Amino acid sequence: MSDTNFTDVFARGDENTAYAQYFVGQSYLNILTTEGLVVANVTFEPKCRNNWHIHQASTGGGQILLCTAGRGWYQEWEKPARELNPGDVVNIPAGVKHWHGAARDSWFSHLAIEVPGEGKSNEWLEPVSDEDYESLS
Amino acid sequence: MSDTNFTDVFARGDENTAYAQYFVGQSYLNILTTEGLVVANVTFEPKCRNNWHIHQASTGGGQILLCTAGRGWYQEWEKPARELNPGDVVNIPAGVKHWHGAARDSWFSHLAIEVPGEGKSNEWLEPVSDEDYESLS
Repeated sequence: MSDTNFTDVFARGDENTAYAQYFVGQSYLNILTTEGLVVANVTFEPKCRNNWHIHQASTGGGQILLCTAGRGWYQEWEKPARELNPGDVVNIPAGVKHWHGAARDSWFSHLAIEVPGEGKSNEWLEPVSDEDYESLS
Repeated sequence: MSDTNFTDVFARGDENTAYAQYFVGQSYLNILTTEGLVVANVTFEPKCRNNWHIHQASTGGGQILLCTAGRGWYQEWEKPARELNPGDVVNIPAGVKHWHGAARDSWFSHLAIEVPGEGKSNEWLEPVSDEDYESLS
């Protein structure tokens, strides 16, 4: 889908090939800094979303999303999806199964900040089913 | 100065009374999260800047600025000032004397992320002199 009407503050970066296997659809990744903290700008084309996943950590960990452009979704396992718009903040605790991505009809960008911790790893799980995703308006 | 033409992604928040003593001019503070990390949106009216200051830490520490709207400046002691525009990223190491703020003719907003560390404290120093500030274009 054209992104003619989509403007983000931060540069889009390149196609997110490193994590493509864990995404449905095309995403883009621009790592803004790795000094002290890892902060990235992640952009999703319409309908693009990542698989269910868990940020594992023995202490600390998790991720903070800062929504900067477009419209998207965040959902934790067995909870209703939360619509995301620019200015929204999502605190994703370690150990919580979740996914995030664009709306069906909109590009979407968020900053992702990795919260420091010990024993950190990402556990990637099954894709969000089309049935579940298409039920979102 | 009117902010009619100034649009930021993140809400402006309230007048930054807590740190007003360390700023010249009016700033606004919206703390976006304190869960795991402290992330705030800081907005400066034109000509507003903070005093020279140092993020002290025994390990880690410092601050990351993510510029979201308007035009501003970042300067480290005895170095030329760096102009800041939306999308710019500034890594401020612990121990480095610096200031940041708006341009003379523009509002300015950045996200500020506190980098975790031990033995952290902020050391606030003298204001940026009018002579030094007014020399910036």
